[in-house]
This record gives sequence, C-alpha cells and structure tokens, in this order.
Amino acid sequence: MSTETQNIIIQKIAKSKISEVDFSNLAFGSVFTDHMYVCDFKDGEWQTPTIKPYGPISIDPSAKVFHYGQAVFEGMKAYKAEDDSIWMFRPEENQKRINFSANRLQMPSFPKEMFFDGLETLLKLDRDWIQKGEGNSMYIRPFVIATESGVSASPSKEYKFMFILSPAQSYFKGGGSDVKVLFADKYSRSANGGVGAAKAAGNYAGQFYPTHLAQEQGYQQVVWTDANTHEFLEEAGVMNVFFRVGDTLLTAPTSDRILDGITRKSIIQVAQDMGISVEVRNVRVSEIVDAAKNGTLLEMFGAGTAAVINPIAGFGCKGEDYTLPKLENSYAMLLRKRITDIQTNKAEDKHGWRYKVKE
Amino acid sequence: MSTETQNIIIQKIAKSKISEVDFSNLAFGSVFTDHMYVCDFKDGEWQTPTIKPYGPISIDPSAKVFHYGQAVFEGMKAYKAEDDSIWMFRPEENQKRINFSANRLQMPSFPKEMFFDGLETLLKLDRDWIQKGEGNSMYIRPFVIATESGVSASPSKEYKFMFILSPAQSYFKGGGSDVKVLFADKYSRSANGGVGAAKAAGNYAGQFYPTHLAQEQGYQQVVWTDANTHEFLEEAGVMNVFFRVGDTLLTAPTSDRILDGITRKSIIQVAQDMGISVEVRNVRVSEIVDAAKNGTLLEMFGAGTAAVINPIAGFGCKGEDYTLPKLENSYAMLLRKRITDIQTNKAEDKHGWRYKVKE
Ligand SMILES: Cc1ncc(COP(=O)(O)O)c(C=O)c1O
Ligand SMILES: Cc1ncc(COP(=O)(O)O)c(C=O)c1O
Repeated sequence: MSTETQNIIIQKIAKSKISEVDFSNLAFGSVFTDHMYVCDFKDGEWQTPTIKPYGPISIDPSAKVFHYGQAVFEGMKAYKAEDDSIWMFRPEENQKRINFSANRLQMPSFPKEMFFDGLETLLKLDRDWIQKGEGNSMYIRPFVIATESGVSASPSKEYKFMFILSPAQSYFKGGGSDVKVLFADKYSRSANGGVGAAKAAGNYAGQFYPTHLAQEQGYQQVVWTDANTHEFLEEAGVMNVFFRVGDTLLTAPTSDRILDGITRKSIIQVAQDMGISVEVRNVRVSEIVDAAKNGTLLEMFGAGTAAVINPIAGFGCKGEDYTLPKLENSYAMLLRKRITDIQTNKAEDKHGWRYKVKE
Repeated sequence: MSTETQNIIIQKIAKSKISEVDFSNLAFGSVFTDHMYVCDFKDGEWQTPTIKPYGPISIDPSAKVFHYGQAVFEGMKAYKAEDDSIWMFRPEENQKRINFSANRLQMPSFPKEMFFDGLETLLKLDRDWIQKGEGNSMYIRPFVIATESGVSASPSKEYKFMFILSPAQSYFKGGGSDVKVLFADKYSRSANGGVGAAKAAGNYAGQFYPTHLAQEQGYQQVVWTDANTHEFLEEAGVMNVFFRVGDTLLTAPTSDRILDGITRKSIIQVAQDMGISVEVRNVRVSEIVDAAKNGTLLEMFGAGTAAVINPIAGFGCKGEDYTLPKLENSYAMLLRKRITDIQTNKAEDKHGWRYKVKE
C-alpha cells in the first residue's frame, strides 16, 4: 500500500454477471457492474471504505435521506482506449462539485484522495465492463446520502458516499434530433438563494410533474426560466442550454439557480478555440422567439455529461410552436465531435482535460 | 374482514421493545415503536400492505429516492384519552396533503381507505406505546419514497408508502421561549412555481446550511422570505409563522411557496372563535421591524404539528437584533391551550376536528 493509497476493503463477487449483459442494447442507467464502492461517515469522519458486490443496501426507514432529502450526486464517464487504458474527462470538476453540492446541503466534504483512489480502484476492478469503441463509455454515479435515523428536521450525522457504475452506449441511436422543448412559464426549478446550483436530489423530483405536463403537450423536456419573471432562459432538467443566433452561441451565466455544467464550460472553451463566438449572458425568451420568427435562430442544444450535446429540434412558448431549421454542419455536431474526440483521445487535449486512470 | 377493511398482512414482533424505553426522557423522533406499515406500489398499483417489526429496509443503491429526491412525508399525532380510546387531530388533512405533495412530485396518490385502515391498525397494534397524560402523544410519520432502480432522471415506477410511529413528549420542557429567529435576506426556501407547498423531502435539506449559518449567529431558526425581494415574510423551516401587532394576528397567505399548515389553519379558526382578529395577507419585513421598534409587535410564534405553537422570543434582521416583550396572557399560550384542549378532548370540538380511531 503506497502512502497515497487509502486503505480499501475489497470483497470480490464470486461470479461476474457480465456474461448476462447485452452491451449492444443498454437502456441508460439500468445495468450496473459487479461491484460498488461504499464509504460511511460517522463519529465525525469517513470510515474505511469497502468495495463489495453490487447489491441492495440496508437502511433505517427513518434515515434522513428519506425524509429531509439530504442527497447529492454526480454524473461522469470513463472511456477505454484501444490499448486498454482507462480515461476520464475533467473528473476533478466532478469531485469539486459533489463537495460544493454536499456543503450546500450541510453535508461533509469527501476527501479528494479518497474520491480518486476509490473510483480508480473500482474502475480497474470492473474494467471488463468498460467497452471500447465509438460511443461506448462507463457512466459513473458518485452519490452521498444521509443515513442517520431519526425524524427530526436537522442535518444527519451519518452519511454514505458511494460509487456505482453503469455501462452506457451513445445516447443517440439515430442521426438528427427530434427533441422538442417547452419554455417554462408557470412552474420553476429553482429560486434565488436556493439549491439550484447544487446537484441535489430534490431538484430533480420537482421537475417531473411539470415535465409530465409538457410531455402531454408533445414536448420531451422543459427549459426552465427564472422563477420570478419567466423572461430569461436558464437550463433544462439535466442539461445546460445553448442557442445559436446567426453565428453566435448564447448561454445563460451560471448563478445560484443554475448548475455549473462541465460540458457547458468545455463547450464554451472549445467553441472559442474553434473561433465560434460565444456570449455568456442573460438570454431573453423574447429574443429567442424573435430570432425564431425572423429565421436567425439556427440551433438550440442541451449540454450535459450523459449526451454531451443534445440537439433540439424545436420549442414551444406561450402556446406557439417553433421549429428550427435542419443544418448540415451544425455547431452542435462540430462541437460534439470535437469534445468526444478529446474525450476519446482522438483530438489534441490542449487544456489537459483528459485524465488517465493510474495502472 | 369487513368490506371496508383492506387486507393487511400482519407479522407481529416476537418480543416488544417497550420495556427498554424511558418515556419520561424522549428525544423527538428518535425512538420508534415495535411495528411499521409498508405498502409497495408496482405494476401501476398499490400491493397488499404489510405491518411488520420495525427495522431496516433493503433498497437498491440506484433507487430514485437517493438520486432524484422523489420522497414526500407527513407529520401527525395521536393521543390516548383516559378511557384508552385513541384520537387524532384532523387526519384527513394530512391524508389529502400527502397526496397533494406526492402528485406535485409525479408520484401516485395513496388511497384514503388504505391510509386510515393501515394507520389505525398500526396504532392499535402499538397502542401500549401511546402514553396518556399532559403533553404525551404518538408522532406519526407517513412517507412515500421512490424505490425503482435506475439512474435516469425520470419518475419512478415503484414506491414504498410507510407509516412509522415515534412516541413524543411535550416539545417544551421549560416555561418561556428562548427561540430566536433570523429573517432570511440571502438564501431562500422555495420558488414561485416550485415545490415549496409540498412536504417534499428536498425542501428540508436545502434549509440546513442557511440555518446552520443563522445558528452561528445565535439564532435557532430562519424565517424565510420571498426569494425574489426578501421583503415578505413567509414561513419557518417546519412551521408557519404568526405575528401579533397590537391586538391583531398576521400571517402570510398560503401559495405555491408555503406549506398549507394544518396547525396554521386551526389557529386562524380558533383565534376567530375566540374573537381575536386575524389578517391573512402578505406581511412585510419592514412593517414587522417598524412594529418591533415602536413597541406594537407583541408576539411572534411558529405553528406546526410537532410543537403546536412555538413562541419566538426575538428576531434578527439585516444585522439588527430585536427582542419581543414577555407577556403574561399571550395569544400564543391562549391559542396553544385551546388547540391542545381540543386535541385531548378537554374543550368542545365544534369544528369536528377530533377523529376517533375505530375499535
Ligand atoms: C441540472 C443540470 N444541469 C446541467 C447538467 C450538465 O452538467 P454536466 O455537463 O456537468 O454533466 C446536469 C447534469 O448532468 C444537470 O443535472
Ligand atoms: C415547511 C413547513 N411549514 C409548516 C409546517 C406546519 O404544518 P402542520 O401544522 O400541518 O404540521 C410544516 C410541518 O409540520 C412544515 O414542514
């Protein structure tokens, strides 16, 4: 054991489940690898972590996660190169952000060394589950939940930090996009001074009902607007959002209401590297509607780890429906290619975003 | 089995834990009775419920409650009368509200008959745990959590509805109040169009960090203001809030940001019955500060199931500290007495709020 290596108790599975998995037909986030990583926080500190066979956890019904929503998570990906080395994309950003999210919910930080040591050990143990080739990746879900029992509304004194791994294929099966989004004008996702900038579990449940209503109207997702006026476009359920008006990309600045997405900031950088002009500023609903009407709104897309870039085909706003043009060389496709090329080692990594899992 | 009675599978505990409990020294929400009620939702319907020994539940680490916060709860109380009959207070309101909360998070309603049948069966089974006498009650925690496994951000198809019971003593050990609250001027609890009116788990975790900051400044709780301007007083963490200016009680109207508290509406009614004038309207921070300065702010109190009425001794606002006068016959004490008298059968129940558990 080297000095940088945290002690991890490893209990290997008796027989791998990998042969039961059809890797050519994976529903996102539904299949998990053989092992999971668990580290408990109690008596004011993180205990010795364990890697053990993936399976149910036992938890008191009065655990604070069930009642008071102290739960945060991250979403990241690992890729396997032709030489079997394993790579991640800007994982320090996820590591920082899970602590930012945790602290916003009055939960303890998880140490950086334990994060990387645990994650890399787990990835190596389940390395056969990481498939090579175009579009394949390992989706990594770090999360922290409050496990102390007792139904009084105060921060938990006990937590579980976990990593679970789910093999993923490219989010897109076909070519073009048929995602249509609805601009929110009644419901909202987050408040000034709230927890919108944290990847807090509770932020997601709140979106399901308004998203369901949007789906009934034929839209797949909601683009949230500011809760106060509904005049400014913020982000989607699990994606930041970009608008291309003419040759300029627009995206909202981050704030305490908006998640500081890693894909978003990578896109801003890569776009600038490619000479595409990007304006990070408040984006008015009215200017996007006007641009759609006068034909200058050329693209809209979502940006997030799961899909990298998710082109949007059209949007609904105040009862009107707008369809975007179909472009040959869209910014969405150019940027997605550049980012996935960096992720998978096919393009120069000039910002040092690739991270190689230590052998 | 009568036709109104839902089939419940009952597994009794081998030996009761009751002799281990010191009922004169209970920390709120920390001790649970012998049994719990569990009903699973799957394949689109609620399955046959089970009452079984209280203990940990087994749940997949990818369950949606851990990642997307689909979790709602209620808080209610049962009381035991001198003749051993068991009573609740306006339980239909909790039953309605848990479904309102669930639906806001795109979770299924739990049928009213199953709610009452399950709860009453459980209360009767653990009836020895309900202590008679002043201030004693059984705190009831109904809750629903999303149990489907899979880390994609969409509503769960599987849920668990549970009741757990925790014996409670009077919230107040001493006489007067020493609770000081801080008026929020930066952080906030909920957004217009958000989930603030639901008893959603995620609403609570978001308050812990700002409450911690307030505690560092010597305040126990935060009184939330509107997220947009911080000019209007809304509610506290687990309580609605009332202000007595002169002889009038003021409280904010409910909205999609504020929980429609059952204690709050009972207080409004009882105050009117007692001839106390109540104004339900937006309450400005500035008017309360002015009233504190000119001596017309006579009382502030929180209202919620756990404490019924929780007098507030003072508040902080924008760096200033305000102390309220100590009154002999406060509205808080008068109203608390009247409401607890109704709850415990000592005052006329003219609105039909008492509910007798069927023998
Ligand atoms: C609310 C929200 N916005 C944006 C994103 C995109 O962030 P990232 O690019 O870091 O995955 C996510 C998560 O993936 C998210 O949950
Ligand atoms: C946010 C919030 N406000 C107010 C209340 C008071 O509601 P009730 O009187 O129904 O208990 C509660 C819960 O108890 C609450 O969680």
